[in-house]
Amino acid sequence: MTTPPRVSVPRNHPSPISLLTDFGLRDGYVGTMKGVILDILPWGRILDITHEIEPQNIRQAAYVLATAAPYFPLETVHVVVVDPGVGSERRGIAVRTARAYYVGPDNGVFSRVYATEKVREIRELASPYYRLPVVSNTFHGRDIFAPFAAHIAAGVSFHSIGPLVTDPVRLDWPQPQRLPDGSLQGEILYADRFGNLISDIPVDWLEGAGDWRFELAGEVIEGFAQTYSRVARGELLALGGSEGLVEVAVREGNAAARLQTGPGAPLIARPGLVG
Amino acid sequence: MTTPPRVSVPRNHPSPISLLTDFGLRDGYVGTMKGVILDILPWGRILDITHEIEPQNIRQAAYVLATAAPYFPLETVHVVVVDPGVGSERRGIAVRTARAYYVGPDNGVFSRVYATEKVREIRELASPYYRLPVVSNTFHGRDIFAPFAAHIAAGVSFHSIGPLVTDPVRLDWPQPQRLPDGSLQGEILYADRFGNLISDIPVDWLEGAGDWRFELAGEVIEGFAQTYSRVARGELLALGGSEGLVEVAVREGNAAARLQTGPGAPLIARPGLVG
Amino acid sequence: MTTPPRVSVPRNHPSPISLLTDFGLRDGYVGTMKGVILDILPWGRILDITHEIEPQNIRQAAYVLATAAPYFPLETVHVVVVDPGVGSERRGIAVRTARAYYVGPDNGVFSRVYATEKVREIRELASPYYRLPVVSNTFHGRDIFAPFAAHIAAGVSFHSIGPLVTDPVRLDWPQPQRLPDGSLQGEILYADRFGNLISDIPVDWLEGAGDWRFELAGEVIEGFAQTYSRVARGELLALGGSEGLVEVAVREGNAAARLQTGPGAPLIARPGLVG
Repeated sequence: MTTPPRVSVPRNHPSPISLLTDFGLRDGYVGTMKGVILDILPWGRILDITHEIEPQNIRQAAYVLATAAPYFPLETVHVVVVDPGVGSERRGIAVRTARAYYVGPDNGVFSRVYATEKVREIRELASPYYRLPVVSNTFHGRDIFAPFAAHIAAGVSFHSIGPLVTDPVRLDWPQPQRLPDGSLQGEILYADRFGNLISDIPVDWLEGAGDWRFELAGEVIEGFAQTYSRVARGELLALGGSEGLVEVAVREGNAAARLQTGPGAPLIARPGLVG
Repeated sequence: MTTPPRVSVPRNHPSPISLLTDFGLRDGYVGTMKGVILDILPWGRILDITHEIEPQNIRQAAYVLATAAPYFPLETVHVVVVDPGVGSERRGIAVRTARAYYVGPDNGVFSRVYATEKVREIRELASPYYRLPVVSNTFHGRDIFAPFAAHIAAGVSFHSIGPLVTDPVRLDWPQPQRLPDGSLQGEILYADRFGNLISDIPVDWLEGAGDWRFELAGEVIEGFAQTYSRVARGELLALGGSEGLVEVAVREGNAAARLQTGPGAPLIARPGLVG
Repeated sequence: MTTPPRVSVPRNHPSPISLLTDFGLRDGYVGTMKGVILDILPWGRILDITHEIEPQNIRQAAYVLATAAPYFPLETVHVVVVDPGVGSERRGIAVRTARAYYVGPDNGVFSRVYATEKVREIRELASPYYRLPVVSNTFHGRDIFAPFAAHIAAGVSFHSIGPLVTDPVRLDWPQPQRLPDGSLQGEILYADRFGNLISDIPVDWLEGAGDWRFELAGEVIEGFAQTYSRVARGELLALGGSEGLVEVAVREGNAAARLQTGPGAPLIARPGLVG
C-alpha cells in the first residue's frame, strides 16, 4: 500500500494564503484579489505580508518574502505579484517546496526560495479551470494568480495546474566575501521603515574575532552591539538583526536618513584584535 | 408552498463584509470598526478594499467600489464610509441588489451601483436594534455602519432595517462622447499608485478603426497597445486596462507624474486609417 | 463544586487577536507576526488596529489602544508592539483585565488600560513554551509577543505564562484642569489623518455654561458645535469627538495643517454667559 501524495485531494481545512505585492493599499487592487480568493474559497484565511514593495522591485520582494515565509504555517500558499512583465510572454508559475507553495510570475522573484528551500516541483499556471473566465493584459493578480492560489489552497492536485517548468528564471545576488586580511565585504540589502540598514553579512561570520569595526557610507562604527541599548539614543551601531544578518541602525533614530544610503551600498567589517 | 425570501433568516454562514473608507490606516478607526463587527459576528470575515480614498472624495470611492465589488462573493456586504456630511441630516442607507449589499451614507457614493446592478431595495438605517447603544456625531462608521453591516451579514430580515428609500442621492458623471469625425472624447477617472491614468473610454469603442492616436495633457501617443511590453521602458503608451477602459501608462514608470495630470483631464482618441 | 476559572482550559473558539504596532506596512514585519500566530492557532482571527504609530511613540500607541480596544469582543488579546527598549532588560508582560488581554513590552504602553479597566493580573512573559525556540534581540514582536498572544488566545492558563508583576511601568499624562474662573485648560492628545485635533477635555465638562470660546495655537473659536454641518466648509470649529472629548476640526479640511499644531499644544475653553 502506498501513501497518497500529500496534496492530491481537497483538504478539510484550506491552506492559508499570504499576499505580497507592489500594489500599495490606496487602490482597490488588493481588495479585489481577496474578493476573488474568498469567492472560490469561502473560508479562506488571507494574510498580507506587505503591499508596499517599491513598484516593480523584484529583488526587494524576493528579500521580504524570504524573511516572512518561513514563519507561516506549513503548506501556506504565498502569492507574490511584482510583475513588470505583466501581459508579455513571461509565464506564471506555482512552486511546491517541502514547506509551502509559491504562486506568481516567473521573473526571478522566487530565486531565494530556490536557494533556500527543497523544491519539489514547479508548474506553469496553464489550466483554464483555475483562472477567471476573462483574463486582462494588465491585472494577472486578479485574473490568474489569486484564483490559482485559491484552488491550490483548496487542495487541487498540483499536477493539474499545468506542465512542469524546469528552467525558472533565477536572479543572482552578489555574495558577501571574506577577504584575505580577515575583513568581510558585503552590501546593504534592505532599508526598513525605521531606517535600519540590513546587510548580507551573516552575524555568525563575526565569531572568533574579538571585536569589529564597520565602514558604511563614509562612517566608521566601532564594535558590534548585542542590542540597541548598548549605545546612547541617536547613536549609530552595528548589531545582529532579526534575520541573523549584520544591521546598521541608530538607536531610536533612522540610519538610512542619517547616512543617506540604502540597498546596494558596500559594508566592510574589519576584525579587531582577538580579545 | 412559497419559497421564503432569500435573506430573511439568519444564515449558517455569515456573508463576508468588505470595508472601503477614507479613514487611512494610521489612526485606530478602521480597527475599531472591525472590532465592532467581530463583537456582533464572531466568525465574520472582514476584507479591506481600501482605506486610502482621498478624504471626502465620494467620486473616487464610487469608482474604486465599482472596480472591486463585482469580484466578491455573492451577498457580500460592502461598507463604504466616505462621509463629509457625518452628523448632519443625511441618511444612512443599505442597498440590496441582485448580487450584494451596500451600507453607507446616502451621499451618492453608491451611484455606480444604481447604474450597473439590479437594485432590489434601498432602506434607511433606522432600526435602533442594529446600531451601537450610543451614537456619536462624528464616527458613524463605528456606531452605525459597521453594526448594521454585521447584522445584515448575520442574515436579519432586510425589511427590519428601516423604511424604504425611493429617492437616494445620485451623482452624475460626464459620459464619453463619439464625435461626428469619429473621434472619441473622454476624461481621466482615476490615477492609481503606479501613475496609470484610467479613462472612461471603453476599449471596445476602439474596434473597427485601424489604429488610434491619443491626446492627453499636451502629449500625443501613437497607437493602441495590447500590453506594456509593446513599448520600451520609460515610454508612454495607451492600452486596455483591467476594467476594460483605455488607460495611459508609462512602461515601468509613472504616467501621472510624467504628464503632471490626473482625474478630470480630457482624453481624445482619434482614429487612424482603417488597416 | 467550584466553578473552574474562566480562562484555564483551551476554549472551543480562540479569542480574536488585535495588533497595534509602529512597524508600518512596507516591511514584512507585521505579516511575519501573523504567520507566527496562524502557525500556533490555525483558526486565529487576527485584526489590525494600526501599524502606523509614529516610531517608538509609546504615548500615541497608548491613546489609540484606549480608543479602539473597548469596541472589541470580550477576551480579545490585544498585542501592542511599540518597543524602543527591545533587547534591553525591559520585561514583556501580559495583562488580564475584566474584559480583555494585553500583551507587549512593559514600558508604559498599557498605562491607560491600568487607569480605565479592572486589572486582574499582570504576568511576565517568562514561559519558554510560549515563545519561538530562537529569540532575536531586535524582533520580539515575532519571537515573543505574537506567540504568547496566540497561546493566550488558545486558552492556556494565565498563570502558566510567568511570574506575577506588581510594579508595571506607568506613564503619567497631564490632566485637564478646571480653573477658578470657570475656564478649562487641557491639551491636544492626538491629531488624526483628517487633521482633527483631539484634546483631553471631556465634552461633559462643558455642560452648564451657555456657550464656550476656545483658544488654540493663537486662534479663537466661538461656540461649541454639535456637528460639522454647523459651520461652512473650510471653517474651524470645536465639537464633541467620537471619544467624548473636545476636538478642533475644519469642516472638510485639516485643522492640524491650518493651525500648524499638534499633540501637546494647550487648549483653553472659556465659558460664555449662561444662555
